[in-house]
Amino acid sequence: MTSRTRRSLDPADYVYRHDVRVRFAETDAMGIVHHAAYLPYLEEARVEYLRAIGHPYSSLRAAGTDIAVLEASVRYLRPLRFDDVATVHLVPVAATRTSFEIDYLLTVDGVACSHAVTAHACVNERGRPTRLPMWLTELAVTRSSHR
Amino acid sequence: MTSRTRRSLDPADYVYRHDVRVRFAETDAMGIVHHAAYLPYLEEARVEYLRAIGHPYSSLRAAGTDIAVLEASVRYLRPLRFDDVATVHLVPVAATRTSFEIDYLLTVDGVACSHAVTAHACVNERGRPTRLPMWLTELAVTRSSHR
Amino acid sequence: MTSRTRRSLDPADYVYRHDVRVRFAETDAMGIVHHAAYLPYLEEARVEYLRAIGHPYSSLRAAGTDIAVLEASVRYLRPLRFDDVATVHLVPVAATRTSFEIDYLLTVDGVACSHAVTAHACVNERGRPTRLPMWLTELAVTRSSHR
Amino acid sequence: MTSRTRRSLDPADYVYRHDVRVRFAETDAMGIVHHAAYLPYLEEARVEYLRAIGHPYSSLRAAGTDIAVLEASVRYLRPLRFDDVATVHLVPVAATRTSFEIDYLLTVDGVACSHAVTAHACVNERGRPTRLPMWLTELAVTRSSHR
Repeated sequence: MTSRTRRSLDPADYVYRHDVRVRFAETDAMGIVHHAAYLPYLEEARVEYLRAIGHPYSSLRAAGTDIAVLEASVRYLRPLRFDDVATVHLVPVAATRTSFEIDYLLTVDGVACSHAVTAHACVNERGRPTRLPMWLTELAVTRSSHR
Repeated sequence: MTSRTRRSLDPADYVYRHDVRVRFAETDAMGIVHHAAYLPYLEEARVEYLRAIGHPYSSLRAAGTDIAVLEASVRYLRPLRFDDVATVHLVPVAATRTSFEIDYLLTVDGVACSHAVTAHACVNERGRPTRLPMWLTELAVTRSSHR
Repeated sequence: MTSRTRRSLDPADYVYRHDVRVRFAETDAMGIVHHAAYLPYLEEARVEYLRAIGHPYSSLRAAGTDIAVLEASVRYLRPLRFDDVATVHLVPVAATRTSFEIDYLLTVDGVACSHAVTAHACVNERGRPTRLPMWLTELAVTRSSHR
Repeated sequence: MTSRTRRSLDPADYVYRHDVRVRFAETDAMGIVHHAAYLPYLEEARVEYLRAIGHPYSSLRAAGTDIAVLEASVRYLRPLRFDDVATVHLVPVAATRTSFEIDYLLTVDGVACSHAVTAHACVNERGRPTRLPMWLTELAVTRSSHR
């Protein structure tokens, strides 16, 4: 589903940005941020993006809809280190009636450190796939057409 | 509730042991295991202990009972490092009708690296405290009287 | 070393506060924040406190000094949930030439959810204990005398 | 670098398997394993694989070589749940002089739950890329030619 060639290293290609300060707990014995710690950064940025566009994830959840992760892919270009402020840039890039994708660029002081993509579906309280809310489909479709 | 003086550095004072291999993901930029990573080790040992005595936690959960953590306290004596095999020794040490405590000793190659205590209550599916199952009360009471 | 009775549920007894937004990644299958996730919250607040008083931890580390954790103890009073903004209140409460302690109170919307204490020592690049920097000793001593 | 079409859902296409028991700490408020928790499972399996073929990662590290992660990609097919025993099947699938890739299949009771790929480079103590050890290049090349 994901088409990696779409990923851009230019922050101007993304519609939202969110800063994350690297915790010491997220580093590893190589002295850099462990590769698994990036996924919660992406998730935190997604959650803040949904809040910013008026659809907080906690409201979705209260209404019985969860956003499941179908796929996650991360490229690590330059290491993140303790106390770095990583800016997570994101853009929804594709959607069907049941799934959508978001692209991410992580920068520190304007330098690209990582890019990533996640694919998602909406699920109900029993974990069954459901159609996306209309606003979510349109959001991604609109974004895609911009590109 | 916890009485730290009870904690022993002698593995013979514990009734169950479980080995955990340190993951690279659990280390930090000091080159040792991050202090927060110990709590999942204790939890994993608790879960294996409950399985060993015939009361698997997944059965408790399937019956609508969860074991909440009321308190956790860890002393770090010697660092754990990547690839170490840490042996978690544990013993239930106290119980009331609604709560119980477990003591832990972590060793690597027989050398004490950490001791810890956790206090717990049982809760129902809405998170409300419930009485402990009889076997759990008796288990801890018995263990306490041994000491 | 830690004296639990000192812990206060009154935010006025703490000298610094730092907000942390709960990540979805930090919740568990009980629907609340996993107990191990609190320790990185405390750590993040410590790091911000050191920055606020002009002694950023990254500078300490660059100078070859690390702050090791000797002990951590957390009481869980009320669960934290996804998307909660937890305010971590902290105060240094004791110090010797080689170790110091910090007390914490976590609140959500002004309601106490947890209190905690951590004890620390400074170590050099080989992990050996060193004397505390003077500012750190004085900081804690001063705070203690206030109480 | 990664070519996803190579990934197989047939355990027979993998050369090594390692079991991981899901920890409660790894679940999230959806009641399933959080997507970020899979990466440490893959890492644990890699480490056990290197040990099994006589090249323990701790020896590599002691000799000044680290294995950095260049890319990680995971597809989530079926959720993992608390206490599941996930079998991580892996196979090295490609190598150049400076990088290599590993494919993974996760199964629970023989049912495919996830597949994944990670790409790696060897780095020295300053984080600089170095040539792969010969055994590592040959290992992956051999495996590739099998496919």
